[in-house]
Amino acid sequence: MAVKSITPIDGGVCAPLGFRAAGVNCGMRKGIEPDLALIVSDVEAVAAGVFTSNCVIAWCVANNRRLLTEEARATAIVANAGNANACNGPSGRGADALMRSDAVESLGLPAGAVVLTASTGVIGRPFPSDAVRGGIEFAARELLSSPEASLAAARAIMTTDLVPKECAVEVETRAGTYRVGGIAKGSGMIAPNMATMLAFMTTDALVEPDVLQKHLAAVSDATFNCLTVDGDTSTNDMALILANGRSGAPVQMHDPGFERALFTVCEDLAKKIAMDGEGATKLVTVRVVGCAGDAKTVARTIAESPLVKTALFGNDPNWGRILAAAGRSGVHVDPEMAEISLAGNKVFSKGTPTKINLDSVRMAMNSDEVEILVDLGAPNGDSATIWTCDLSYDYVRINAEYTT
Amino acid sequence: MAVKSITPIDGGVCAPLGFRAAGVNCGMRKGIEPDLALIVSDVEAVAAGVFTSNCVIAWCVANNRRLLTEEARATAIVANAGNANACNGPSGRGADALMRSDAVESLGLPAGAVVLTASTGVIGRPFPSDAVRGGIEFAARELLSSPEASLAAARAIMTTDLVPKECAVEVETRAGTYRVGGIAKGSGMIAPNMATMLAFMTTDALVEPDVLQKHLAAVSDATFNCLTVDGDTSTNDMALILANGRSGAPVQMHDPGFERALFTVCEDLAKKIAMDGEGATKLVTVRVVGCAGDAKTVARTIAESPLVKTALFGNDPNWGRILAAAGRSGVHVDPEMAEISLAGNKVFSKGTPTKINLDSVRMAMNSDEVEILVDLGAPNGDSATIWTCDLSYDYVRINAEYTT
Repeated sequence: MAVKSITPIDGGVCAPLGFRAAGVNCGMRKGIEPDLALIVSDVEAVAAGVFTSNCVIAWCVANNRRLLTEEARATAIVANAGNANACNGPSGRGADALMRSDAVESLGLPAGAVVLTASTGVIGRPFPSDAVRGGIEFAARELLSSPEASLAAARAIMTTDLVPKECAVEVETRAGTYRVGGIAKGSGMIAPNMATMLAFMTTDALVEPDVLQKHLAAVSDATFNCLTVDGDTSTNDMALILANGRSGAPVQMHDPGFERALFTVCEDLAKKIAMDGEGATKLVTVRVVGCAGDAKTVARTIAESPLVKTALFGNDPNWGRILAAAGRSGVHVDPEMAEISLAGNKVFSKGTPTKINLDSVRMAMNSDEVEILVDLGAPNGDSATIWTCDLSYDYVRINAEYTT
Repeated sequence: MAVKSITPIDGGVCAPLGFRAAGVNCGMRKGIEPDLALIVSDVEAVAAGVFTSNCVIAWCVANNRRLLTEEARATAIVANAGNANACNGPSGRGADALMRSDAVESLGLPAGAVVLTASTGVIGRPFPSDAVRGGIEFAARELLSSPEASLAAARAIMTTDLVPKECAVEVETRAGTYRVGGIAKGSGMIAPNMATMLAFMTTDALVEPDVLQKHLAAVSDATFNCLTVDGDTSTNDMALILANGRSGAPVQMHDPGFERALFTVCEDLAKKIAMDGEGATKLVTVRVVGCAGDAKTVARTIAESPLVKTALFGNDPNWGRILAAAGRSGVHVDPEMAEISLAGNKVFSKGTPTKINLDSVRMAMNSDEVEILVDLGAPNGDSATIWTCDLSYDYVRINAEYTT
């Protein structure tokens, strides 16, 4: 549907009509921080999801994938932080089923209602089903449709994240106005030490299941899948979306407006995840253009190079590492054709280093956001963008700490 | 030729008959540390080399590759530490040619003699040919056939390495006795901040060019190519070998004795490089067995996971990260079939965590050498070993430091 405007609004997952949320503490994480989130649609919603490509998967991933294939509908999402419910033996399967049925019961839903689950935290631990049940009962009583409720849910899925991540937009079309909202967590890419990527989106647009899945897959590929903190993918990564149709505004099979709105929300969440990567001091955007092969592979190799990432931490315009990372990516790279810019300063051009003012380049790199632009010089070449962060002492500190 | 014994001996590259070496300071690195190495055979030797797979390569790599393809013979190797002579514009090409001709002249070799070059250090800087020429002249006068001379050469190729790396063996066969020696440097895998992998081997065995190249390629694949510090391959990585035949002991086309001797030297050097990786506190051996796909891919993914490496630094038996890294390697992994042992302690078995004494596992991990053993449970499956090190604060410190 032709879009007149896409406007940022408050409210996160509660911005679309007919969604309520809550975030409560059920005692799984240390302290009094919330660790259990609930997102509920007033009416059964169309649902879609994309999941980790890891062969080793948590029970929530296996079960959501199966449920969405069978039904493509859900009424609620329940998520916990502190225990990944993965690789913990056969009892984990039952624990995931219990989490779903506890939510159905606490929310007073009909027996056949679908609840999607998500877990993040330490791998390989027995799942504390009693605590989670208590948390679900508590959260079900706390449900509200307010910006504060979305924020509480965003906080409840945090692990090593430092800030909650939310976004929402209002979309005006000729056929009506609808909203898309979302919350997410980072902040490493893997579960064992409490980190996984989770993103939950809501919309009150009226969308058919296959349309929703198609748009979510395309947008995730261009946003969440362009994100790397340390190259590790989790056993629990997922992005889910519920579309309850409450606005009455319809979305078509090929709806660039809806795709753009969903992209706006997911891109914002992805950048917030990169910026809040474990130990990150800056958001790094790696943009590769003019690539004779797959630009995403080159951009990802640069973004995941520990040497590039430590240099960024040190505000060191060490373009040799960037060029060498591109050169080992498996895609053909000719340094005689390549140009590299760092934070807006051209540092290398067609085989030869550029004369630069070192202090001003270092100063430009000493920023919350730094762009690495690599032009490989192929006419009509492929281009891609990857978001990442730098590699600091704090990344090592956070990840060398003991699991218990 | 049937081998009676392979015995470790002193002397590094000077252990084989007819080789002299020197390591001197030519002013390229700060301070008085040696930064120019020369290895010379008394007679023209058969030569072979293997080089970085990076598309972006230094002039020494491009020129050695061409020379060895044309001739497969060389009399000397000259190497400098401090400047990679890579990506520094067209002048670098001439500088590499000058380094060769300066060595030919200083050594009083005939005009057509082949000298192989190697450079390691910062990428993108003009090459200081005058200083290098002075160093070559100095080193040519210092050449000796002694353990001290080999050690001086091993020191002269160090950059961020903390210790010089040498190895030599004596091989007794029915057809005579010969020796294989070598020196190497690490310690990140990439040049810009002064790190590259270089290995230079010598032998007084009598070997045909194609036999030497075949054995070097096979052994490098099983040793140097099983080594990863941070996944970055340098623009300058190379392993070279000179075989001068001075012992008179012949090596055949399929000579398991020679291959075992060369493997012994190269494996020792590779492990020393991993143990001396930037910031490393321990040597980590990742062994994958029973793999339905390519075991080396799984082992490399585990060995390069920043999350696995930081956990090793913290002596944290975080097997979930190991399993998750295996799961994202692209090779099919079934956690229900997998077993993981850490420093000799089984921590995960067929889908379920093993009950362990946490303190004793942590204590076992707090060692100079730790083995990660992953059995993926496939009958007659593939196996592979990769050596790496942990990821510490010092890796970040070393690599965040400014290039100049």
